[in-house]
Amino acid sequence: MLFRIKTINRRVSVASTTQMGNKKMAKPIQDFYPDELAHCYGCGRLNPQGLQIKSYWDGTKAVASFTPRAYHTAIPGFVYGGLIASLIDCHGTGTAAAAAYAAQGRPPGSKPHLRFVTASLKVDYLKPTPIDKVLVLTARPVEIKGRKVVVDVELLADSEKCAIGRVVAVQLPEEWTPAGSSPGQ
Amino acid sequence: MLFRIKTINRRVSVASTTQMGNKKMAKPIQDFYPDELAHCYGCGRLNPQGLQIKSYWDGTKAVASFTPRAYHTAIPGFVYGGLIASLIDCHGTGTAAAAAYAAQGRPPGSKPHLRFVTASLKVDYLKPTPIDKVLVLTARPVEIKGRKVVVDVELLADSEKCAIGRVVAVQLPEEWTPAGSSPGQ
Repeated sequence: MLFRIKTINRRVSVASTTQMGNKKMAKPIQDFYPDELAHCYGCGRLNPQGLQIKSYWDGTKAVASFTPRAYHTAIPGFVYGGLIASLIDCHGTGTAAAAAYAAQGRPPGSKPHLRFVTASLKVDYLKPTPIDKVLVLTARPVEIKGRKVVVDVELLADSEKCAIGRVVAVQLPEEWTPAGSSPGQ
Repeated sequence: MLFRIKTINRRVSVASTTQMGNKKMAKPIQDFYPDELAHCYGCGRLNPQGLQIKSYWDGTKAVASFTPRAYHTAIPGFVYGGLIASLIDCHGTGTAAAAAYAAQGRPPGSKPHLRFVTASLKVDYLKPTPIDKVLVLTARPVEIKGRKVVVDVELLADSEKCAIGRVVAVQLPEEWTPAGSSPGQ
């Protein structure tokens, strides 16, 4: 979702990002999120009912895998498109955070925290996605400009490309204070 | 998701659709889906773990409402973007089915069944969506052409527009036979 932010018009090319931050992360980017920003249904480690998506950054791209549950069905035998959109969404924002840390040449989790949310999401469903396979998502930052990162994502099942997506992610303001109810209640 | 289909290049304008089928449905379109196509995590009445989205067609548009659960959080206090994408997805395909029945001038649920799946989904998150409100989605068909229906969706919370989406839905082939595991196992 889009939070109103003041955009800093500083552009960092994806090429320079990878030069500055081409280090493989030892743990997924979501595990570096501060506690107050780790409740997301898609990727929050503190949301026990959630999907707990984990994105591993290797310096130029991030990979996540997910095994759908039987009830994540669309037409029986195939994965629900909303789940695919959810995976692309959270893997996209996670990749945006990893790429932004890399672009700034500092380790993930260092302060100020970089946490991205989704401004827009586009998914093209190329073919039915089988529900009994591990889904593998690969995400690459294609633009980093100010507080915005654009990420392209591919989803494969059994080495077949089943969906592609684009996430436009924007960085949460540093002064952001979470409000409202906690998850899991 | 996109199932390979042979497109019939027959175009029905949205205006003629509403002239032919401007009847309010007594029950949601998803309740007319045949059992074998009613397992969707988003809208299947036979998926007990699912969201059970219900789309009510009034002759020109369809309305659905949904109350997020506490764990459907993004940043605490706000709704997870993947849930919003899921709601727009299933409300979009449901609206496509209702509009297609209307365009053919026949009652929903009559044979051959009309069941749509998503070829592409685009969501723009306009502002953070509060998690403690009922979300109201309104969907309108903007193009009906052959087996394809394009649907625009708005999502409001407390009368504020928080997200908009576009769903390109395609009709499942009549000979489609569900395969694989059932949900809820």
